[in-house]
Amino acid sequence: MSLLSRNNIKHDFSYDLNVFKIPRGTRDFTPGEMEKRRYVEECMMSTFKTFGYREIQTPMFENLDLFTAKSGDAVIDEIYSFTDKGGRNLSLRPELTAPVIRFYVDKLQMEPKPLKLFYFGNCFRYDRPQKGRYREFKQAGCEIIGTDNPEAYAELIAMAYKLLKNVGLENITLSIGNLNILSSMFDKLEISKDEQKYLIPLIDKSQFEDVFEALQDFGVEKENANSFLDVIQNSDVNKILNYIKGDKTAEQELSNLMKILKLLETSFDVNYQIKMSIVRGLDYYKGIVFEIEAPSLGAEKQICGGGAYELIPLFGGRETPTAGFALGFDRTILALEIEKYNLPSPKLDFYVVPINEDMISKSLEIAQKLRGQGASVDVDLLRRGVGKSLKYASSINTKKTILIGPKELQENSVTLRDMNTGDQKLIKIKDIVNLIG
Amino acid sequence: MSLLSRNNIKHDFSYDLNVFKIPRGTRDFTPGEMEKRRYVEECMMSTFKTFGYREIQTPMFENLDLFTAKSGDAVIDEIYSFTDKGGRNLSLRPELTAPVIRFYVDKLQMEPKPLKLFYFGNCFRYDRPQKGRYREFKQAGCEIIGTDNPEAYAELIAMAYKLLKNVGLENITLSIGNLNILSSMFDKLEISKDEQKYLIPLIDKSQFEDVFEALQDFGVEKENANSFLDVIQNSDVNKILNYIKGDKTAEQELSNLMKILKLLETSFDVNYQIKMSIVRGLDYYKGIVFEIEAPSLGAEKQICGGGAYELIPLFGGRETPTAGFALGFDRTILALEIEKYNLPSPKLDFYVVPINEDMISKSLEIAQKLRGQGASVDVDLLRRGVGKSLKYASSINTKKTILIGPKELQENSVTLRDMNTGDQKLIKIKDIVNLIG
Repeated sequence: MSLLSRNNIKHDFSYDLNVFKIPRGTRDFTPGEMEKRRYVEECMMSTFKTFGYREIQTPMFENLDLFTAKSGDAVIDEIYSFTDKGGRNLSLRPELTAPVIRFYVDKLQMEPKPLKLFYFGNCFRYDRPQKGRYREFKQAGCEIIGTDNPEAYAELIAMAYKLLKNVGLENITLSIGNLNILSSMFDKLEISKDEQKYLIPLIDKSQFEDVFEALQDFGVEKENANSFLDVIQNSDVNKILNYIKGDKTAEQELSNLMKILKLLETSFDVNYQIKMSIVRGLDYYKGIVFEIEAPSLGAEKQICGGGAYELIPLFGGRETPTAGFALGFDRTILALEIEKYNLPSPKLDFYVVPINEDMISKSLEIAQKLRGQGASVDVDLLRRGVGKSLKYASSINTKKTILIGPKELQENSVTLRDMNTGDQKLIKIKDIVNLIG
Repeated sequence: MSLLSRNNIKHDFSYDLNVFKIPRGTRDFTPGEMEKRRYVEECMMSTFKTFGYREIQTPMFENLDLFTAKSGDAVIDEIYSFTDKGGRNLSLRPELTAPVIRFYVDKLQMEPKPLKLFYFGNCFRYDRPQKGRYREFKQAGCEIIGTDNPEAYAELIAMAYKLLKNVGLENITLSIGNLNILSSMFDKLEISKDEQKYLIPLIDKSQFEDVFEALQDFGVEKENANSFLDVIQNSDVNKILNYIKGDKTAEQELSNLMKILKLLETSFDVNYQIKMSIVRGLDYYKGIVFEIEAPSLGAEKQICGGGAYELIPLFGGRETPTAGFALGFDRTILALEIEKYNLPSPKLDFYVVPINEDMISKSLEIAQKLRGQGASVDVDLLRRGVGKSLKYASSINTKKTILIGPKELQENSVTLRDMNTGDQKLIKIKDIVNLIG
């Protein structure tokens, strides 16, 4: 009892020290970091738009039942759920697909098809914080609703790939699988649904020796287990075809997969590999699935995952083909940093320095004139004089400094200094706006 | 007991019906709404940048104590607070100033001054939902840290005003007050701090008759109460000066206020009114305060509020002059809609239609070529033929449609249709990229 109370005191004490710290697993972003993040977001956004996708947004929290309906009650252990003052069970969103499909079922079912939607949003998971894993993280994602033609899937996968390439990532690998074919392979081995549930996580983690043992435990002959694993691991089209021969549904799926792959090559110039071991570990995926990895990220290398799935009927909507992907925004940034990609760093166009107090009004006026032309302009607001101002202007990455003094002002002129070369010249005030562009 | 259990059943039942509804007081945003919101955000962002401000971001939730330290325990009734799985008391942020100052104290104190920071972020309040008030709402805001010169305040206030003007708002009014002058006016009447706390909300709501009665209850002579109210209500500079004459601090504050107002007129061409009844109802404001209203919004007309304040020492940082403002993003959009401002509605540049299945691959390829030039391009992914495709392209606001058929393709050509005029012409595939720009 006395130990317990001492622990309590200690806990309270350490808690007090953390009062004004950032919550564990979350991040603040400095101006430099935000400039990177905005640049990446804009690249992604403009790629989505070039593919005819349009942006939507949903709330930061949803009714808890939305997520348990999709992912089961176990998800509660990993999410930020809470009860609001009206007694509602809510949860910060752990992902964006469920909210988007809820939105679609609620308000967008009558929109012309195919509906192409993209979104950015912060998501929340109560996870042990580690490199590339945060409790608040940002995702990008999209959904195409209303078509299951191969060209639709090819375009979707190509977009995911181009999105990351356009952002500047060099080293990424795209893998494509098909869950319907995998399912028919399970059927051939007479593996029950429960047994599949045991195998799928092992396949997902490429623990193929464990898969082999489990298959034998489930009564699969050694030879059959070997050829199953051969197809899964090598993902050779002819081997797959051989394995599923006679299963008409699986043959049709493979034929569609081949059409998608052909379009990726010929129309989109996208490199890929077939990977039959992609399972995405989720009940609602079906048919085509794909993943994009940035190998430089090590253990947390997957930066994009998606495919065709069925979630609309579960949320009360009319069945419609749906596919989409989610993309880890933070991991994309991390991968860019590892590749030492030089994100453009914006400069301040002008720094305006009033030489004395009487020059302040004119300085602000000239600054405002330049802003009206779209230039970014800062003014010395500390009255620190020319020397210190030039030093500061240089420290914040300024292109040009404008010095405003009484003598020059009498001739309607100011001094313009190029911060790169150090060159200075007199310039008429009326000509200043011509500096923009 | 039986009544209680019936109520429980009823509650559970209505709850089940809401499972896949959006949480009360929150919103989904359609593509059309998002295009408006992004346009407004970009206008605001580029205005912030022209003033030399740089963007930062903080987490969606903070330790609860951060907000109670700033606003008192009463704030708990209005916010989304919850306990995480590690027993931490957290809260979805109800506003952005406290998190930003926490960030500054934690990581940015050593940055060169003045530090100019802006931010956008969603905030959360457990409030009765009504027009212009949501439980999740978006705010824009900024902070300037490290200077209290009049030119810094003038620039800050001018930026708030320009921000809303640049977004497209016509009808806004800017009011400026000063809490130090108000405070010295209270002192002259020998009003205690507790009495001030009673009066301030009444002044905030312009309930001047109640102020008059309260002043008399507090022992202020009728004549003195009248002249106090005359100054507060009419905000005439000469009357203020007369009232505070002899109070050196207040005279200095008024002189600074006059400098700020002069700069707003001469350097920034900004219209304003003095309003001594601005109190902002917050303990940590001091000195200059201002508000911008959009009168068209009626009861919820305030869209921006700010001023100088002192929060850094409370959060454990070294005292530094700080000023900033918060701007209601949702109310700004609402005011634009009331003013019937025409936000630019983006069009799709091209819609590409494969005339038959064999044309799909080439269609995707041409679409991709156009996207590579930055154009927004959609392709018929439903194989619905020319007629229906043209109808769809028109419904999604397409500029030009490209029809791809076998005969034209043999001559390396496609048919280009202007969706505005209906004109069609043959065009060589190699010339298609010249259509951009």
